[in-house]
Amino acid sequence: MNMEKEIVTLLHGAGGSYMNSLIKDVFLGLYDGYGEIGLNALDDGAVINNIIFTTDSYTVRPIFFKGGNIGRLSVTGTVNDVAMMGGQPIALSLGVVLEEGFPIQDLKKITDGILSTAKEAGVHVVTGDTKVMERGKIDGIIINTAGIGVRPSQLDHNIQNLRKTREPKNWLVPLNLRPGDKIIVTGTIGDHAISILSSREGIGFEVNVSSDAAPLNRTMLNVMEVGGVADAKDPTRGGLADLLNDWAEKSGLGIYIKEEKIPAREEVKSAVEFLGLDLLELGNEGKAVLAVSPEYENDVLNALWSDPLGKDAQSIGEVRKDIEGVILETIIGGKRYISRPIGDPVPRIC
Amino acid sequence: MNMEKEIVTLLHGAGGSYMNSLIKDVFLGLYDGYGEIGLNALDDGAVINNIIFTTDSYTVRPIFFKGGNIGRLSVTGTVNDVAMMGGQPIALSLGVVLEEGFPIQDLKKITDGILSTAKEAGVHVVTGDTKVMERGKIDGIIINTAGIGVRPSQLDHNIQNLRKTREPKNWLVPLNLRPGDKIIVTGTIGDHAISILSSREGIGFEVNVSSDAAPLNRTMLNVMEVGGVADAKDPTRGGLADLLNDWAEKSGLGIYIKEEKIPAREEVKSAVEFLGLDLLELGNEGKAVLAVSPEYENDVLNALWSDPLGKDAQSIGEVRKDIEGVILETIIGGKRYISRPIGDPVPRIC
Repeated sequence: MNMEKEIVTLLHGAGGSYMNSLIKDVFLGLYDGYGEIGLNALDDGAVINNIIFTTDSYTVRPIFFKGGNIGRLSVTGTVNDVAMMGGQPIALSLGVVLEEGFPIQDLKKITDGILSTAKEAGVHVVTGDTKVMERGKIDGIIINTAGIGVRPSQLDHNIQNLRKTREPKNWLVPLNLRPGDKIIVTGTIGDHAISILSSREGIGFEVNVSSDAAPLNRTMLNVMEVGGVADAKDPTRGGLADLLNDWAEKSGLGIYIKEEKIPAREEVKSAVEFLGLDLLELGNEGKAVLAVSPEYENDVLNALWSDPLGKDAQSIGEVRKDIEGVILETIIGGKRYISRPIGDPVPRIC
Repeated sequence: MNMEKEIVTLLHGAGGSYMNSLIKDVFLGLYDGYGEIGLNALDDGAVINNIIFTTDSYTVRPIFFKGGNIGRLSVTGTVNDVAMMGGQPIALSLGVVLEEGFPIQDLKKITDGILSTAKEAGVHVVTGDTKVMERGKIDGIIINTAGIGVRPSQLDHNIQNLRKTREPKNWLVPLNLRPGDKIIVTGTIGDHAISILSSREGIGFEVNVSSDAAPLNRTMLNVMEVGGVADAKDPTRGGLADLLNDWAEKSGLGIYIKEEKIPAREEVKSAVEFLGLDLLELGNEGKAVLAVSPEYENDVLNALWSDPLGKDAQSIGEVRKDIEGVILETIIGGKRYISRPIGDPVPRIC
């Protein structure tokens, strides 16, 4: 990157290859060697003193959408980042930046969304900060939440079971992946991105799809109680395509998935076709992707199917050492490489 | 507050009475009873599981100013919030929201400021998030940091010494204040706000004052090592005026301070006079105000004077039970009540 001339583009926020290089070129310079899982892991969060610590800023538009609002999202996004490491979220911080003129009533609706979603997850907002910027200097509202999580006994149990087949790390991380691990998606893909698009004015299409935004921490406790979960990640910005490439890159292994197995609503599939999008690049806010030791595959699926947030779970592929990168077997039997998305099919979905 | 018609104004971000009511009317609704020091304390941070947790968003303009930049500020502000509770900061999260078109070179300067200041404080950036908003949707860059702190042995020592004169809480909180406690300011007041003003174009005045932005956690360890510190707060937005009113309100005691004792640079005093500002309402980013049990006053002052960040420390007044609110004895001997500021003399200083 030629830093003297470069500027930030929307691609740098798109959860794909550009964002990846911005993070590596600029933010990774902040890594100073600290942390059981530190900044250099570029994972959903860090682990220090056995505490999980994570943060996300939320700039979603519109702020109220089918199935949620920016308040609900600012809880689920951060809760899920903690949960994907294997942690149990306990506390959130809340940083709100408002535009002069923002309606207090809307702010109240947003804090209602925060409170109800926090209760759903069993997490608590314990500290906060408010800033106001002049009219025109910020688009309404942006929210940052940071989350703290602790180590649940279910994670110990899961890691213990994982020891039967490998030398696992102490948390759910990509380095735990082994050839043969099954890739399980906890439900339908693309709902959040399509809901956001459909909630936007002037897009010219409307579908009856609600955002899947939901806290997955209880679901994660259930599957870790079964055991054999090597890693978990939530396919947010960049979708499945970015997530699976991240796994392949960090584990040094290949990922093979079958298109026909990927769960998606008919309305979402139609919208994807109509709008010329790639289902695999769409962001989700209530789904996890699990890499599971094969002997636990059925039990994990059964646990998911008995959970409202996992009822559409599917095993979509596996980790392989004989291939590199991410390969999709298409419905008609062809194979194609899936790379990290470059742009963002739907900007500002979170 | 009539929520249906109310909108957010700049006053709501000004660290005074309006912000106070916004927090109480809207954000306090998020309190669910959780935390050793919870959201309802409206303190610099929360305490959960013996961990301090705090957050701040930074919207300062200009982003580069005399004595610092938004990166340095985003470390010092959050580190100081942890330190003011008596904690030792260990880890920071970093949420960056950028405007499309922001120069990468400026971003690099900012992360350099973050890294060097984190080293100065002995704290580590361990996790982060980046978002990009479309051109015109946000004014360049805003940063959020959240901080985690642990309990240092110096705090145990300090609380132990405080037991000689009262039944203290377990952390540095306003409820520890007792009549007779001395109010100590660790240095000159107003430097940050005047530096920011002077760094702005079109203000029509320029003074050679640098921001005081500095991490105070080591200074706090030094004074807690002495002991007798009942509470500490940093006079950021709203300045001394807001801080002292906060103490009076939360402790139910009065505060009496002497104008002649308040340390301030000549350049700052001149600027305050020239611009018609109130010194007591100006924000600071490298100063603490301590309430100290009287028998420790001299030792705390001596400890501060041997610390570069406390060399201009002064005892400026005391906590009293025979008065209500905050009273200033002016240089000419008059007395006037100091109330929480309504507006912000210098908006967006942090």
